[in-house]
Amino acid sequence: MWTLDRKSKKPLYEQIADHIEQRIATGEFPPGSLLPSERKLANQLGVNRSTVILAFAELRSMGIVESRTGSGTRVADAWRGNITRHTPNWKRYAENGGFLPNLPFLRKIREALLQDPSMIDFASGELSADLAPIDEINAILNKQSNFAYFGYDNPQGYLPLRQALVEYLYQYRGIRTSESSIMITSGSQQSLFLITQCLTSPGDAVAIEDPSYSYSLPLFQSAGLRIYPLPMDDQGISPDDIRSLFKENRIKMIFLNPNFQNPTGTVLAQERRKKLLDIASELGLPIVEDDPYSLTAYDGLPLPSLKSMDSNGGIIYIGSFSKIAASGLRIGWMVAPHSVIQRVADARQQMDFGPSVIPQGVVARFLQSDSFVAHLERLRIQLQFNRDLLIEALQNELSGLVAYNAPQGGIHLWIKLIPYVHEGKLLDEAIKNGVVYVPGSVYGSNSGFARFTYARPNSQDIQTGIAGFARSVRKLMAP
Amino acid sequence: MWTLDRKSKKPLYEQIADHIEQRIATGEFPPGSLLPSERKLANQLGVNRSTVILAFAELRSMGIVESRTGSGTRVADAWRGNITRHTPNWKRYAENGGFLPNLPFLRKIREALLQDPSMIDFASGELSADLAPIDEINAILNKQSNFAYFGYDNPQGYLPLRQALVEYLYQYRGIRTSESSIMITSGSQQSLFLITQCLTSPGDAVAIEDPSYSYSLPLFQSAGLRIYPLPMDDQGISPDDIRSLFKENRIKMIFLNPNFQNPTGTVLAQERRKKLLDIASELGLPIVEDDPYSLTAYDGLPLPSLKSMDSNGGIIYIGSFSKIAASGLRIGWMVAPHSVIQRVADARQQMDFGPSVIPQGVVARFLQSDSFVAHLERLRIQLQFNRDLLIEALQNELSGLVAYNAPQGGIHLWIKLIPYVHEGKLLDEAIKNGVVYVPGSVYGSNSGFARFTYARPNSQDIQTGIAGFARSVRKLMAP
Ligand SMILES: Cc1ncc(COP(=O)(O)O)c(C=O)c1O
Ligand SMILES: Cc1ncc(COP(=O)(O)O)c(C=O)c1O
Repeated sequence: MWTLDRKSKKPLYEQIADHIEQRIATGEFPPGSLLPSERKLANQLGVNRSTVILAFAELRSMGIVESRTGSGTRVADAWRGNITRHTPNWKRYAENGGFLPNLPFLRKIREALLQDPSMIDFASGELSADLAPIDEINAILNKQSNFAYFGYDNPQGYLPLRQALVEYLYQYRGIRTSESSIMITSGSQQSLFLITQCLTSPGDAVAIEDPSYSYSLPLFQSAGLRIYPLPMDDQGISPDDIRSLFKENRIKMIFLNPNFQNPTGTVLAQERRKKLLDIASELGLPIVEDDPYSLTAYDGLPLPSLKSMDSNGGIIYIGSFSKIAASGLRIGWMVAPHSVIQRVADARQQMDFGPSVIPQGVVARFLQSDSFVAHLERLRIQLQFNRDLLIEALQNELSGLVAYNAPQGGIHLWIKLIPYVHEGKLLDEAIKNGVVYVPGSVYGSNSGFARFTYARPNSQDIQTGIAGFARSVRKLMAP
Repeated sequence: MWTLDRKSKKPLYEQIADHIEQRIATGEFPPGSLLPSERKLANQLGVNRSTVILAFAELRSMGIVESRTGSGTRVADAWRGNITRHTPNWKRYAENGGFLPNLPFLRKIREALLQDPSMIDFASGELSADLAPIDEINAILNKQSNFAYFGYDNPQGYLPLRQALVEYLYQYRGIRTSESSIMITSGSQQSLFLITQCLTSPGDAVAIEDPSYSYSLPLFQSAGLRIYPLPMDDQGISPDDIRSLFKENRIKMIFLNPNFQNPTGTVLAQERRKKLLDIASELGLPIVEDDPYSLTAYDGLPLPSLKSMDSNGGIIYIGSFSKIAASGLRIGWMVAPHSVIQRVADARQQMDFGPSVIPQGVVARFLQSDSFVAHLERLRIQLQFNRDLLIEALQNELSGLVAYNAPQGGIHLWIKLIPYVHEGKLLDEAIKNGVVYVPGSVYGSNSGFARFTYARPNSQDIQTGIAGFARSVRKLMAP
């Protein structure tokens, strides 16, 4: 006999509706026939009558059954025609699975950008075509006989790229590692996905910065993790907070973005890094160091990576090509102990067999070329220039109404709005004015903050966009 | 107070060991101190004493505690040195998460190939460098100014590729669709991953062919699906079996590879396709049509796709560039109702933000070029040639000891070994003889079968490889 699955994420009433629908579909209850009463079904299945009522309502809304007061619930007559041709209930299929939908604000922004290509984009956390090394990449693609073979590759990724990264990681981030400790991923996003899916279990507690880019990622919730915030000041998180989180909530892992943090642009201070590593190694707590921005340091001198300071093997380091070159290449990397790399490489085989060889080859060559260093220098100058433009525009348009710290690297400015303005309404109004940015709550902050990325719009648009944003703020400000 | 998570997949004893380890790490039990007795802990936590015994054994094996008969369990003295520097227990982290490891035979094959590059490879289900359109792809890469922009892309994939696929799907597979119903994936593997993770829930039942490539994919088990086999004969599955599976096991979805099936090479007969569609639409059951091989039909005339015959919206069609061009490009596609495409595109944002733009652009151009048709023709001729070589070698070396049906397309020959030979020993022996292939049980069949892919080795190696395989069989055959 059929039984309910009480552990399933699918609500009981849907399971019941599903079950009845199938019994109708197989002809057990022909069109026009009476279904068992709500009370009887509730008894049979051991659920509240209200659950069966919900199930019947669901079936009614699909036109499968009809209820008339006093005469019970019947299979719809009209169902007759459908009984032999029955489109799968895709809507219901699409509600399955453990992946939570993306955040509503992010969807709204995505739609606004898709619908109006002239929208000024302070929301996409990436470089514009001007800042990306497009000519350099095309030059690499245009070199004769690029690739000799395109087969299924080593599960850890294309060897020449891992070799190039051994060099790169040492030279730029002080990390000593070897090809076998590196896995190539489809960007940091995939690294984070693999870490949350493979190294934690549902119900585990993890700590992240507050505010943090990670809050914008439903992947933590999809993995069933409990998230504990580590409050930040202008020097980053306070390492001592970790000890109490560990004692009280048994946190299993810490996710940090220590350099030019997304969204705040903060750099974790050097003394705090040392303390952090001491505490983490004392507690045996692993840290995921998410480090996509360090090479954008405007003075060319980012602080050393946590990984390079760690003598304890407690850091998983993840890097990406997205913020220093091109997010559309979808190339990132992960440096971790062998047992971890093997586990995630094995799991990744189930997801996609790894990233395409072509972009991996392109990145390998670009990292080893002279044009890489030249590109980085140009990028830093231009980012700093854009930052200054943005700040100037804010001073002109919203003087006294906004507060911020000027970041020394990265691509984001974290803005505090001094007057109260309704967060959702402000975004809507800004969209009407042709501007998108990301409301602060997406990153877990209280309302009253917003992230403006200055790498994407061009100089002209930065000015126009902030004017549009300022109009929206003034319109909605309490008078 | 800390409590056990009885819903967790992590065994109770490991949760307890974990918990005690953390209390030791935070200094609650200093080195040398006595831990609570097994009986006391068991009472406190509400578990059997045997569970606590297992937890202590685990801690002992890690050198954290010591037990001496009669004097209880103490924190190890040696732990003193470690208490302030404590590497995360990566091994235990790596045991987390829901992804099952890959199958042991497949790991063994992968290792054999990595260790000895001269190994003759009948195992990798892909084209050799000779058969892949490498010159054509490099020619596309070498065209001046390939790409104007490399940013985060539309979650459904690169628009020019989706546009090219609308044409392609109509011309080659009779499928009428539009860009908005297509999602680009990192190969069929990612399509299958997304479908199992997003459209089914743990505990759901699905039907797959028996034998089937799907059995080699732990992804079905990782998604918690119950798998029901649909036995195959030389015409494919019998559609009537679906009705009974549906009645008895409430299957939610059917996964089929109707053309030149992996591993058997079988084509689902035309009358059965019609019947299958009738039954599926009667039951409202969705079918996932996995169709990577149809364009290799040696006569150039594959049967129409199920999707093209379906008037009911019940088919998710998935295709791939892997078997007709290059698996290392990692480009596949999925055609499905809007609600499904939106759901999987949204979930994919959490995994990797989509495949790289470069290979998507390459495939778009290749599909629209004249060299695509020329490549397909050449490919078909060469595959047929390789198939004939393989069959000839088998006739020469193992005449009377093997049986098979010669496939009319695809890249795999499914071989039945007539004498009994131990499956695992045969693979080991073949590896010693410099040959790998895939044992049949990987695809869910009884032992006594093996899959030989003839697209990967060159002509010379097919001959030598089968000679090595024949030596292995004869050595292990019961005398
Ligand atoms: C801190 C941080 N980590 C990870 C990512 C993901 O980037 P990608 O997957 O493109 O490497 C981002 C992108 O905004 C980021 O800011
Ligand atoms: C039937 C079938 N489906 C899917 C795949 C996965 O291929 P890819 O992810 O390279 O497209 C294969 C590869 O062997 C296959 O044979």
